[in-house]
Amino acid sequence: MVQEEQGFTLWFTGLSGAGKSTLANLVATELRNRGHRVEILDGDEVRTNLSKGLGFSKEDRDTNIRRIGYVCRLLARNGVIAISAAISPYREIRDEVRQMHDRFFEMYVKCSLDELVRRDVKGLYEKALRGEIKNFTGVSDPYEEPVNAELTVHSDRETVEESLALLLSTLEEKGFIPRTSAQKKSAGARG
Amino acid sequence: MVQEEQGFTLWFTGLSGAGKSTLANLVATELRNRGHRVEILDGDEVRTNLSKGLGFSKEDRDTNIRRIGYVCRLLARNGVIAISAAISPYREIRDEVRQMHDRFFEMYVKCSLDELVRRDVKGLYEKALRGEIKNFTGVSDPYEEPVNAELTVHSDRETVEESLALLLSTLEEKGFIPRTSAQKKSAGARG
Repeated sequence: MVQEEQGFTLWFTGLSGAGKSTLANLVATELRNRGHRVEILDGDEVRTNLSKGLGFSKEDRDTNIRRIGYVCRLLARNGVIAISAAISPYREIRDEVRQMHDRFFEMYVKCSLDELVRRDVKGLYEKALRGEIKNFTGVSDPYEEPVNAELTVHSDRETVEESLALLLSTLEEKGFIPRTSAQKKSAGARG
Repeated sequence: MVQEEQGFTLWFTGLSGAGKSTLANLVATELRNRGHRVEILDGDEVRTNLSKGLGFSKEDRDTNIRRIGYVCRLLARNGVIAISAAISPYREIRDEVRQMHDRFFEMYVKCSLDELVRRDVKGLYEKALRGEIKNFTGVSDPYEEPVNAELTVHSDRETVEESLALLLSTLEEKGFIPRTSAQKKSAGARG
């Protein structure tokens, strides 16, 4: 029987371009290699499948985040590590999602706006700063930093490998996943 | 490791009051007792959590069903038996949901309209027949019967225990769940 496998929700938050999805995908791969069931609920995929028609007003964003939270909870209570990588700019709604969960790990991927504007991989910040995108989080829409995140990483001054290692060791330390001495071996052998 | 646990979606369809939720809850209890992970996505709960604001037009119903299908698929591919108990009146959308899945069991709970009107536990059919409820499936809105359901039970001429036994034995026969000696006993009891 598999009932004892404990899931949880790993909830990324941070500005667009900060590196949430990159880190989410890397940690998902590592956790799968360790034998966990993992689902990533990516912001875009969820907007297509659960929230078509919703926009980016506070109300619509809140609804979108609540839906992701609901699905994460269903997965987590069935032994899955549910990973959300949506911006989720509002503290109150993140805390509401936390309250739904038995096991919840909030992961803040912090990056300065200067650095995001400098990178601007998709050219969105430039457009937002020119006023061409409305409700753009961090520019024309608020982002409320977490005050009690389980972990904050700084993607403007750590490599993604460093952030990943920190995330995995913190998940272990806080008892979300078992420690494994075979971690490096396992990643090497199965990856 | 738990990766080999195989989930699937058990998709109930049928008119309001036909007995979908009753049967869904009974089979869920039995499947949990056998050690499976089970989630029921009840129509009302889903409307609150995933589809607030949607009405009962064809388009809104389709969106609601697609969302349930998406969540069922996420659960099923992670080893959960995902049970939907929404009316899901349109064949095309049920088939679309089927296509998303590796393992999908469509369960038609059939009941004649005469019998539903006679029972009318919630008084909804009377209201619908008086024209007080718009878009009421089976009265003022279409219900398209399945043509290739894995199982049809007739709640107007079988007891719920008979339908449950038939569902469990069919799930076993079709390889969705393993046979158990306890089930033989239970199946024997209905004969």
